[in-house]
Amino acid sequence: MQHPDTAVRVGVAESAAALIERLRTRGPRVHCITNAVAQNFTANVLLAAGAVPSMTLSAEEVGRFVASADALLVNLGTFDRERREATEIAVQTAAQANVSWVIDPVLIDRSPARADFARALIARSPKAVRLNAFEFSALSGGAPTRETLADYARTTKTVIGLSGATDLVADGARLAVIGNGHPLMAKVTAMGCATSALVAAALAVEPDVWRATASALLITGVAGECGAEQADGPGSFATAFLDALFKLDGQTLIARAKVN
Amino acid sequence: MQHPDTAVRVGVAESAAALIERLRTRGPRVHCITNAVAQNFTANVLLAAGAVPSMTLSAEEVGRFVASADALLVNLGTFDRERREATEIAVQTAAQANVSWVIDPVLIDRSPARADFARALIARSPKAVRLNAFEFSALSGGAPTRETLADYARTTKTVIGLSGATDLVADGARLAVIGNGHPLMAKVTAMGCATSALVAAALAVEPDVWRATASALLITGVAGECGAEQADGPGSFATAFLDALFKLDGQTLIARAKVN
Amino acid sequence: MQHPDTAVRVGVAESAAALIERLRTRGPRVHCITNAVAQNFTANVLLAAGAVPSMTLSAEEVGRFVASADALLVNLGTFDRERREATEIAVQTAAQANVSWVIDPVLIDRSPARADFARALIARSPKAVRLNAFEFSALSGGAPTRETLADYARTTKTVIGLSGATDLVADGARLAVIGNGHPLMAKVTAMGCATSALVAAALAVEPDVWRATASALLITGVAGECGAEQADGPGSFATAFLDALFKLDGQTLIARAKVN
Repeated sequence: MQHPDTAVRVGVAESAAALIERLRTRGPRVHCITNAVAQNFTANVLLAAGAVPSMTLSAEEVGRFVASADALLVNLGTFDRERREATEIAVQTAAQANVSWVIDPVLIDRSPARADFARALIARSPKAVRLNAFEFSALSGGAPTRETLADYARTTKTVIGLSGATDLVADGARLAVIGNGHPLMAKVTAMGCATSALVAAALAVEPDVWRATASALLITGVAGECGAEQADGPGSFATAFLDALFKLDGQTLIARAKVN
Repeated sequence: MQHPDTAVRVGVAESAAALIERLRTRGPRVHCITNAVAQNFTANVLLAAGAVPSMTLSAEEVGRFVASADALLVNLGTFDRERREATEIAVQTAAQANVSWVIDPVLIDRSPARADFARALIARSPKAVRLNAFEFSALSGGAPTRETLADYARTTKTVIGLSGATDLVADGARLAVIGNGHPLMAKVTAMGCATSALVAAALAVEPDVWRATASALLITGVAGECGAEQADGPGSFATAFLDALFKLDGQTLIARAKVN
Repeated sequence: MQHPDTAVRVGVAESAAALIERLRTRGPRVHCITNAVAQNFTANVLLAAGAVPSMTLSAEEVGRFVASADALLVNLGTFDRERREATEIAVQTAAQANVSWVIDPVLIDRSPARADFARALIARSPKAVRLNAFEFSALSGGAPTRETLADYARTTKTVIGLSGATDLVADGARLAVIGNGHPLMAKVTAMGCATSALVAAALAVEPDVWRATASALLITGVAGECGAEQADGPGSFATAFLDALFKLDGQTLIARAKVN
């Protein structure tokens, strides 16, 4: 793997700062095929960031909603018939209408059927894959390292956004290592799902997929840190995270970014 | 259109004050066919206002739940097969059992199939339609004005409750113009859906549909203002809105009402 | 009914104190078949207590998720086709894989079809039934008293956890009377559903089903009291409840327990 270029690395915080402003100015609509546990929180996270959610799963409608959307999220967290049908239509429509999309292969490490479905979707040109270490291993057959992430990104022609204590974002040539975030983020359900929705929102306003993905993960991590400073546990953290995301400005992003 | 009668106008705040007390005393049950994004928040809004939510969508059960309910909400925000079936049974049952119902034609401006479904439902005698300007235009073919709202209300024999920076409630003869509310209300998903559920709750305790609808919109707007005073962003606003609605009393409603 | 043994009674607070530590150390995974209104809050309650939620309903996957889970919750709050199918697979798998499970027969007092379904499930050896007084009457045909609870527990070979102003937990020989809790708990939707999920989590780390069930109800009641002290209404209460549950320690449980 190439060593990441310093100028590029340094630029992630600045990219994120510009991106959050564009989200607020343009208000891109993100169509979300996501799981029932995550729907409400995901919609509120998108609204707090300046984007607009839409969430229908109905086979009669989803194509029309995706065709006019600015980006698409496909989250596999509830792997039911209705969502599989909706996903098929949505991904076809996204290809035809040139709508960027992100896949979040939730819990594929626990379900071979879901992992197969995820692999088939990744072959259909999502721009980015947002996942955790277990899910990456289930996809690629190996533990996530800088090298395996870059290899997988190159092979699949996607950007891989790996969430964890440290986030890694790889496109095969570039790597961002993001040290922001807070342990309370793992104590709120759907935090990862909502992060993937923010990646989709970022793709709507930033054509460089690696910058968009890294920016979305950085924005989430910094909002998590700011929220945690106001929180007294996971309940108040979830509300403080939304408040922090709503108020997050470029200056705070640049001041707090821990990106290597 | 007739000019609204001053005495009637002045009476909206007093109606709302009496209505919120009746909700708490009587605790009407509102059966909600609503979208997955909105279900949890809608249930909590009804509970905070003194009403009791029920939410089953199962074709085997929904008729029985509606027949014994005090009011019904039909929200089209998730337009799937299951909800369309449930809606058919629910609306039939409501007609037979004389249960007042409200329709919220969510996002019909984005989906002609959903707009057709909404129009067919409105022909089946809901008491009220709660919507925004885009949705009204999709229904009626024109922008919402005092005149077009009144015309549409007369034609469909419903009360139209239009939410926006200013809310308008028209029954064809009377018009309430409600200036309460707060911009943060647009930053919490399902706020409109929950407002429609409050309209249904209001119908359960107030036979004058126009007064019920205007009261529900006023209550929501004042709770929004009170909540915003305690909030630091959309996350804390959603919780503060529920707290404010729970504590809202007639005096506060009358003192804060901006009704013309 | 036998009189409860004093030593046993006194031991519930100590059992709960040990149990909450075990939840945090072991992080058991609880698979939840639960209703759409409750899914998000239930997942957050399990996370706050130290457990790990999984929630898929897909017929292709639910068996695998249950087989590797540490406990199972079957909640009847959304009684749709998909959840009935998932329940059938889940209960079969639980029997084969020896996974303890809890049933929450939500609102069966309003739906005879649902009550029949609940009775058939209770014949298939859940460890515990968590319900309210209306639901108990619908199941057993009589009002809940210490005697009828004990009889029903003996007949069905389950532990009955009855929530109310006072909680009662009966296994036919022993009875716990728990006076903790707060009226705001009835103003947050899915509080009962989440309590049932905590009963399932408790079963994963405590083989004595009566102690596990009583501990889960005590933990919920004490977290409710602690949360209410920080709350200004039902919105802030829901977040404060999660914070309190997250921070709850054995000492607080023992100091606050009102168990007879």
